[in-house]
Amino acid sequence: MFENKINRTELENLGEFGLIEHLKTAIPLKNKGSEKGIGDDAAVINNDGKRTVVSTDMLVEGVHFDLTFHPLKHLGYKAVVVNLSDIYAMNAIPQQILVSMALSNRFSLEAIDELYEGMALACEKYNVDLVGGDTTSSTSGLILSITAIGQAEENEIVYRSGAKENDLLCVTGDLGAAYMGLQILEREKRIFLENPKIQPDLGGNDYILERQLKPEARKETIEKLKELKVIPTSMIDISDGLSSEILHLCKASNLGCDLYEDKIPIDPQTYERAQEFNMDATVCALSGGEDYELLFTIRQEDYETLRPAMDIAIIGHMRDQASGANLIDRSGGSIALRAQGWDALMKR
Amino acid sequence: MFENKINRTELENLGEFGLIEHLKTAIPLKNKGSEKGIGDDAAVINNDGKRTVVSTDMLVEGVHFDLTFHPLKHLGYKAVVVNLSDIYAMNAIPQQILVSMALSNRFSLEAIDELYEGMALACEKYNVDLVGGDTTSSTSGLILSITAIGQAEENEIVYRSGAKENDLLCVTGDLGAAYMGLQILEREKRIFLENPKIQPDLGGNDYILERQLKPEARKETIEKLKELKVIPTSMIDISDGLSSEILHLCKASNLGCDLYEDKIPIDPQTYERAQEFNMDATVCALSGGEDYELLFTIRQEDYETLRPAMDIAIIGHMRDQASGANLIDRSGGSIALRAQGWDALMKR
Repeated sequence: MFENKINRTELENLGEFGLIEHLKTAIPLKNKGSEKGIGDDAAVINNDGKRTVVSTDMLVEGVHFDLTFHPLKHLGYKAVVVNLSDIYAMNAIPQQILVSMALSNRFSLEAIDELYEGMALACEKYNVDLVGGDTTSSTSGLILSITAIGQAEENEIVYRSGAKENDLLCVTGDLGAAYMGLQILEREKRIFLENPKIQPDLGGNDYILERQLKPEARKETIEKLKELKVIPTSMIDISDGLSSEILHLCKASNLGCDLYEDKIPIDPQTYERAQEFNMDATVCALSGGEDYELLFTIRQEDYETLRPAMDIAIIGHMRDQASGANLIDRSGGSIALRAQGWDALMKR
Repeated sequence: MFENKINRTELENLGEFGLIEHLKTAIPLKNKGSEKGIGDDAAVINNDGKRTVVSTDMLVEGVHFDLTFHPLKHLGYKAVVVNLSDIYAMNAIPQQILVSMALSNRFSLEAIDELYEGMALACEKYNVDLVGGDTTSSTSGLILSITAIGQAEENEIVYRSGAKENDLLCVTGDLGAAYMGLQILEREKRIFLENPKIQPDLGGNDYILERQLKPEARKETIEKLKELKVIPTSMIDISDGLSSEILHLCKASNLGCDLYEDKIPIDPQTYERAQEFNMDATVCALSGGEDYELLFTIRQEDYETLRPAMDIAIIGHMRDQASGANLIDRSGGSIALRAQGWDALMKR
């Protein structure tokens, strides 16, 4: 009934980050309460008291999860954790979530209860309240949209933009496991679809499967940092793969960095499965995504305080912008880092 | 791959409000900052300063809007306004929004720009900042999830639950027009689909079409109330139709009410079109929905302050719970009010 536009730019040519950049310029901030808008892990709001930190994520069936192998309870848990991870990445403490969902009539009340059971478990574990949301119908599948709200004092908030030259690049836990877990699940799904009589063989993969199906956010890292009174100079959570996140820190802080391949923490199970799949474990860590570990920079003088008290890996250091963002490989060669992480808009 | 549950309760047998009630009990509030959770127009959070008021809504193509007659720019505008309306309904001032969207590859960058143009227009008009969100792909159509954040002093916040016996029941603007606008659009769509050569005849329906396609939230009502220093005893915005909203106020406040049919404000254009469609204009106002007017109760002593300064209709008064919620018709007869508003879960 209404005319169509003649110009047409495909979203896949732009990518998710391109689209965010494009949209960021469209609407300038006006209110004095809006301290930080689009472009970090969360927005920051000033309430003439503590800061409110807010982040939101949308999960779409068939794009972000496959109900063939994501049980609803785990999905509910993961959907909450993924959002809390963004709040922790601002060095804030999550307090509340809002959950919106669209459901097709394929879903029964019992299915929703399972989903909520997982959400309740995450709320319990992370001491977060579910305070609102919206439920509606969908014409196809399940869509979840979760908004997480956290609190922090003004001077505690850590942005992507605060790193300085020579700061140490740190990462919690290990990387690449969630991605390898997904490879296992997708392989077993293919086998199952070809021959439904064959039961999935998931044995020996407990760790990487759990990293994919039921990831955790790094609550204890943020608590420990507060206890040690160390405030990182910059921070981001690893949802799209290490490369992509390092490049975000470099770009926001106008710096370069050296990342040492041999320092990237990778679990033995991730290594073994990568070999099995003829994949390079480093590439899985760099580009795999969904690890929900924290990547942050600290001043060199904070190293002595942090290292004995925390299980973190120092994987490199920040350099000036002209040096670029580099991966130093095992032989000492330097390769420019490239973002090859998940790009949600490519996954159609 | 995973087993299915045997029990199955259909969501349509429960309805949206049934589902909300069911979910509300699942996860109790723990944090002292969570002042109000599920069950009002918005959640209320205490930041040791001003209160943060948060609400979220999900809009699904084919359920909440039809792109055949909702131009993307209007849709963007409406999606924002609908959420701001929830913040105003708490007597708070909206400050920020977060926008998440899932898009199929049917949509180009130019289409998204149109959508954002409408959002930017609403942000501009209501003095709100777009501070974050998420963009992802969808397997079918467009899904929007918007979270609105507002601020208020503790003593200003108005809940659904504060009405007292004999308080006056007030409503802004007029009702039923958005619903009649939708009837016109759906009629013209049917005609167009049957014969694409016939151009849609939308003339003479400007007001009701605008109410459907580009509704406004009642910013000036909240500003005026603050100016007059009148705090309503209870408040809700009319998204599902007057009956449903009145019943929410009655239930939350443990009261009954008398609503006078002849006091319900209805625009002449709504009357005329209702006649044309063989519909009862009162029924459209009671059950139509999407009006985004404010329904609120005031103390009788505030009547003298309010009435000369504001364009509101006094449509009834609150009674004790035992009296029930009643519609007093033009002949003086009393009928029990029933909610027959939009039930999102029925609309599949």
